[in-house]
Amino acid sequence: MSILSTENLAALEQQGIELPSWAFGNSGTRFKVFGTPGTPRDPWEKIADAAQVNAYTALAPTVALHIPWDLVDSFDDLRKHAEDHGVTLGTINSNTFQDDDYKFGALTHEDAAIRQKAIDHHLACIDVMDATGSRDLKIWLAEGSNYPGQADLRGRQDRLQESLQKIYDRLGDDQRLVLEYKFFEPAFYHTDVPDWGTSYAQVSALGDKAMVCLDTGHHAPGTNIEFIVMQLLRLGKLGSFDFNSRFYADDDLIVGAADPFQLFRILFEVIRGGGLNNPDVAFMLDQCHNVEDKIPGQIRSVLNVQEMTARALLVDRDALTAAQKSGDVLAANAVFMDAFYTDVRPALAEWRESRGLAGDPMAAYAASGYQQKIATDRVGGVQAGWGA
Amino acid sequence: MSILSTENLAALEQQGIELPSWAFGNSGTRFKVFGTPGTPRDPWEKIADAAQVNAYTALAPTVALHIPWDLVDSFDDLRKHAEDHGVTLGTINSNTFQDDDYKFGALTHEDAAIRQKAIDHHLACIDVMDATGSRDLKIWLAEGSNYPGQADLRGRQDRLQESLQKIYDRLGDDQRLVLEYKFFEPAFYHTDVPDWGTSYAQVSALGDKAMVCLDTGHHAPGTNIEFIVMQLLRLGKLGSFDFNSRFYADDDLIVGAADPFQLFRILFEVIRGGGLNNPDVAFMLDQCHNVEDKIPGQIRSVLNVQEMTARALLVDRDALTAAQKSGDVLAANAVFMDAFYTDVRPALAEWRESRGLAGDPMAAYAASGYQQKIATDRVGGVQAGWGA
Amino acid sequence: MSILSTENLAALEQQGIELPSWAFGNSGTRFKVFGTPGTPRDPWEKIADAAQVNAYTALAPTVALHIPWDLVDSFDDLRKHAEDHGVTLGTINSNTFQDDDYKFGALTHEDAAIRQKAIDHHLACIDVMDATGSRDLKIWLAEGSNYPGQADLRGRQDRLQESLQKIYDRLGDDQRLVLEYKFFEPAFYHTDVPDWGTSYAQVSALGDKAMVCLDTGHHAPGTNIEFIVMQLLRLGKLGSFDFNSRFYADDDLIVGAADPFQLFRILFEVIRGGGLNNPDVAFMLDQCHNVEDKIPGQIRSVLNVQEMTARALLVDRDALTAAQKSGDVLAANAVFMDAFYTDVRPALAEWRESRGLAGDPMAAYAASGYQQKIATDRVGGVQAGWGA
Amino acid sequence: MSILSTENLAALEQQGIELPSWAFGNSGTRFKVFGTPGTPRDPWEKIADAAQVNAYTALAPTVALHIPWDLVDSFDDLRKHAEDHGVTLGTINSNTFQDDDYKFGALTHEDAAIRQKAIDHHLACIDVMDATGSRDLKIWLAEGSNYPGQADLRGRQDRLQESLQKIYDRLGDDQRLVLEYKFFEPAFYHTDVPDWGTSYAQVSALGDKAMVCLDTGHHAPGTNIEFIVMQLLRLGKLGSFDFNSRFYADDDLIVGAADPFQLFRILFEVIRGGGLNNPDVAFMLDQCHNVEDKIPGQIRSVLNVQEMTARALLVDRDALTAAQKSGDVLAANAVFMDAFYTDVRPALAEWRESRGLAGDPMAAYAASGYQQKIATDRVGGVQAGWGA
Repeated sequence: MSILSTENLAALEQQGIELPSWAFGNSGTRFKVFGTPGTPRDPWEKIADAAQVNAYTALAPTVALHIPWDLVDSFDDLRKHAEDHGVTLGTINSNTFQDDDYKFGALTHEDAAIRQKAIDHHLACIDVMDATGSRDLKIWLAEGSNYPGQADLRGRQDRLQESLQKIYDRLGDDQRLVLEYKFFEPAFYHTDVPDWGTSYAQVSALGDKAMVCLDTGHHAPGTNIEFIVMQLLRLGKLGSFDFNSRFYADDDLIVGAADPFQLFRILFEVIRGGGLNNPDVAFMLDQCHNVEDKIPGQIRSVLNVQEMTARALLVDRDALTAAQKSGDVLAANAVFMDAFYTDVRPALAEWRESRGLAGDPMAAYAASGYQQKIATDRVGGVQAGWGA
Repeated sequence: MSILSTENLAALEQQGIELPSWAFGNSGTRFKVFGTPGTPRDPWEKIADAAQVNAYTALAPTVALHIPWDLVDSFDDLRKHAEDHGVTLGTINSNTFQDDDYKFGALTHEDAAIRQKAIDHHLACIDVMDATGSRDLKIWLAEGSNYPGQADLRGRQDRLQESLQKIYDRLGDDQRLVLEYKFFEPAFYHTDVPDWGTSYAQVSALGDKAMVCLDTGHHAPGTNIEFIVMQLLRLGKLGSFDFNSRFYADDDLIVGAADPFQLFRILFEVIRGGGLNNPDVAFMLDQCHNVEDKIPGQIRSVLNVQEMTARALLVDRDALTAAQKSGDVLAANAVFMDAFYTDVRPALAEWRESRGLAGDPMAAYAASGYQQKIATDRVGGVQAGWGA
Repeated sequence: MSILSTENLAALEQQGIELPSWAFGNSGTRFKVFGTPGTPRDPWEKIADAAQVNAYTALAPTVALHIPWDLVDSFDDLRKHAEDHGVTLGTINSNTFQDDDYKFGALTHEDAAIRQKAIDHHLACIDVMDATGSRDLKIWLAEGSNYPGQADLRGRQDRLQESLQKIYDRLGDDQRLVLEYKFFEPAFYHTDVPDWGTSYAQVSALGDKAMVCLDTGHHAPGTNIEFIVMQLLRLGKLGSFDFNSRFYADDDLIVGAADPFQLFRILFEVIRGGGLNNPDVAFMLDQCHNVEDKIPGQIRSVLNVQEMTARALLVDRDALTAAQKSGDVLAANAVFMDAFYTDVRPALAEWRESRGLAGDPMAAYAASGYQQKIATDRVGGVQAGWGA
Repeated sequence: MSILSTENLAALEQQGIELPSWAFGNSGTRFKVFGTPGTPRDPWEKIADAAQVNAYTALAPTVALHIPWDLVDSFDDLRKHAEDHGVTLGTINSNTFQDDDYKFGALTHEDAAIRQKAIDHHLACIDVMDATGSRDLKIWLAEGSNYPGQADLRGRQDRLQESLQKIYDRLGDDQRLVLEYKFFEPAFYHTDVPDWGTSYAQVSALGDKAMVCLDTGHHAPGTNIEFIVMQLLRLGKLGSFDFNSRFYADDDLIVGAADPFQLFRILFEVIRGGGLNNPDVAFMLDQCHNVEDKIPGQIRSVLNVQEMTARALLVDRDALTAAQKSGDVLAANAVFMDAFYTDVRPALAEWRESRGLAGDPMAAYAASGYQQKIATDRVGGVQAGWGA
């Protein structure tokens, strides 16, 4: 008998984690981007690779796109391409940080013409959403300043509100805007949406279709992220996760790689707050595979989320509540840790096999020959990266 | 002619910074509290000492009290005592972190009886406010947990809201509740109000008389505090400052001592956002003089705030705006830095002398003999500290 | 058959973790120390409590003392008392941070008389070591300054070297001096031994009997502690560990409670570098049980070290090396994580039972009635804490 | 009469700060590199630009090169080119982070052939040094790993020592090796030389011609950098500074821009420890002008170092020592702060004018038309950046 109850298995059955198309392209640091053989040259190949992740895990049914990196002539064709590969197109991510006009801001820029250009880009993204059937427009605002005095913090915040309102007003009834916050980078003195409080204040002013996106790597050192998860769920404003992990800054490592216990705590608060398998709360990855292979890197990532969700589901909530109410610190902590330390991997392998999947997706993918095939086939052209 | 314009001098003239009564008592770390000769034994002596700060600077007309540390039989008498010394009683600070009942929480406690006890304490504080004529009830919530699983984060947040509502409902028309947030300490895993976003969400749910208190030492490493100042002013929810400074954690050092340029940036945003000499935004100190003398430590502190306010007032706002609008990073930064690097101390000394004060308050206090007098006079009794 | 090999079980069999006597007394924060029923009133009772930890785990055969907190009339008697309880006396910890003379330093003080007083205290500690048979004198230097300019950093460093040399020269042939470093606290601007580099430079200048003590909670945010473990082992200067865990500052939480994966990585480097069961590398706890029960808190702590050592021993070193050599990032990480995620608890329980111990030491201790007995018996007197 | 004494002016007269050639090329973040009109296309143009900084400040007589970014056919010609422009060639910086072979390390690589390639690169750099007359070979080791288990930390450290020894052995009698440490980036789990302690241990094992390079942006949050300056000077191992400033990570902002008071404290310890105008301690910049103009960015930087050196020279050392010895915390801090708050800019302008330079180098450069000229002239070709 599995250590995972029927109820827990049912919850895991529903779990879906969106993959970022850009995770399949090359990424790196300001010092160097290392390429890997077989890296996709275009969105079509990225989606084919993403579909591999889903094929081995049944955990990744959707793929997020980044505009303009994933611009194609026909999004209708791309949508069919995705469906042919067993996945669908998900969140649309905008980009207002790579055009020379945006050196000093986009939605916050002093110049109304540049703000309008940035707004128009987002409206074009909504056009893409209409074509792809995507629900969410995700805005990561890479805006800020590097030197004290360089920018008028207050004026930018007001302009941000105005710009967002214009984008928000264009959303369809079933579409949403999710606003990501980030502590720093690419700006090094101030960031226009640096923390969850700012994102919350901004989206609250917009309306019900605007939500906060929490990227697990975008916080100050020491921040209790699960507390923010709890709070945003409580306030009804947690729209989506960008999962990854970090030791220092926005390292964009594989989720769960740096601090597995933190991931456990986050997923526990998701469950505690009703955020698991809640359509309002999207699970997405946002990672960079700078030195490791990309497809197995994504497989590892979704498995990490699944395994840690399983552990969090194992917490004996009644026992936990009893210990908490009695002020028995060690007993409460023990209930919590017992779930974390339980090895759920055999039960998940068994369950995968019961669904016709390989028990070990990493091994199955490695044995499939797909990686060798793309390395051989994808010769010529330009490997996709953050510039294309 | 002064480098400070008439307009700027008028702004400085209005400036008032509230002193914390507890700064005059002993404080320390968990390892040791070092005493100093002359330390007050009771609230009456604390107020006498606080009045010295005002006498030499004309910057510190009010004194905040901490209940129960400053409980007296007659607050009416204490009020008169303060007035006799040229100051008035200010913010009332509650304390729900030193009673054994509060080991696992107060306003957030699992046990309704303990929550009620903590609520009742705050109602008693409002009674004190009625007696002292104080406007603000400041709540620093020293609640949280040390171990993952120990506490139900979500339940505590909901209970906090309920408890605060009961306190809020008791406020008089001209009274306010200011809710302080703190990153960590005394709890080491989670704090119930860890960030400005949480305080903002909580006070917004209460109503117009509830505001956020920003303690400059209560943030994660690297936090851009002036951004939060800007945001809270923009949202109309910056109720008060607790000024101090820090290198590492909540070090409670003299304001401006650790990073004077940060203090400058904060005060610039205060001015930019209309928070200077705005009755809605109270300036207070919250510091510990663990190793330095207390009265001159407070004099130094209010002078630091004044000097940095003067520098921030010197920023050529028109030139700054022009440089910002033109994207001239170095020019904008230069305008900003020019004000910071300008030595305002001679102009402030001159201005003090024009008002009949000593040009150098630190020297004047040292020469006054007050320190020697209290060291001689205050023999016997128990020096005030955080326990009394 | 156990998942732990005979070789690994033999390694675990040898493991010993020293307990700090002060963990059984009350501790807290600068805001409040909460007491618990049954807290020891003197060193005799502390040792009796420490012996309970060893009785249920066979992991904690020695107890560290703190002078003057654990001063007794006859250390010979205390030694026998310990032996009667099945434990021995271990490291002697000095204290030069609670005497009023040490407000501005001890071994680094400007005043030669105060430096001599501090040196003499350490010589007296060595006298205690002679009486107790302790090998190690541990020096945590709680010295530093709060304000820039307050102290002459360089002069203090030179004086520190001189003072340490005088202490070092008094050591017996089989005695050692271990010098602990700490990032900050109780000083808030500078600490005289803030990092491993400073401790290493100081002890290298002394000689072979001087080593570095690594407290896991004494680093800057984000520090890769296992790297330091590796480096100090490589340099032959890792003398001892003070184990605990932290989310923010020197939180002194139960080891493994905040980041179990970090503890795993540390223990892996200990094993990799030959530090496990190496007499040169002492394992000690240094924790504060501010809100949890003390004896079970210590039991939980030594079990955490044992469990994580077992996981670290499970790493398939050959497979790891092969993956590392081939540049297969995901495979190498998988080998590493597989060991971390393996649940060693059943195997350890089984092994304990094979040695005549209870499989679940926490439950066995709770069922023993000892906690209730001391709560009932230890009435009157003053509970031990950091002041006594 | 100047507030700067004759002695202080003489000290300032000697000051020289080396400029990095790469500061004149484009730089950015992993997200985007913004170009600027007039950016140099080759080392010849970089040196011409660097010479402008020296022409207006007389503070920047040498230019550091980066190999291979600054490879030219004839370093003899480049040397003459520099001299024609009034500057000389300085430190040679190696680069083992941009070749595909170095994805998993260079001097630390598992593969001896790749290590040898990296060693050979450094030997080739020493050949360049022989041609340019440069004294220092600066090694920034961009090596590390992203995931726990990926790399054998200990093995890498040992291989690093071996590789460095081979490079060291090739140094001429008057040449030095300076080893830079860095907390993180481009690697996100471990860095092979993450802290000063590691650099110190490595260079101490090499010999007298190996020294530590301290980059002010390469530390953990909260690190007391001036303490490290003091310690390395005390140990005789501070070989050079890479000056820049940061709010978060290795932001590479203009030195003094983020925390001017920190720069003051660093320079005070330089002076205190005999490091000013000491040929053993090289002052260099290492900055990125991502959003500001490059030549005036460098002018601003060397002026910041000069201004802060002047302030640090103003500290009344006798008064400071007296206050420190008497334990008068506030007096000692006041002496320190008085120097920091003194406005040295008019005195420095006057002094520049006395030497035939413009009082305001920023304004003089702006008025010179050089920036417009290079923007017009440098059309076509590829702007220099980190890739070329």
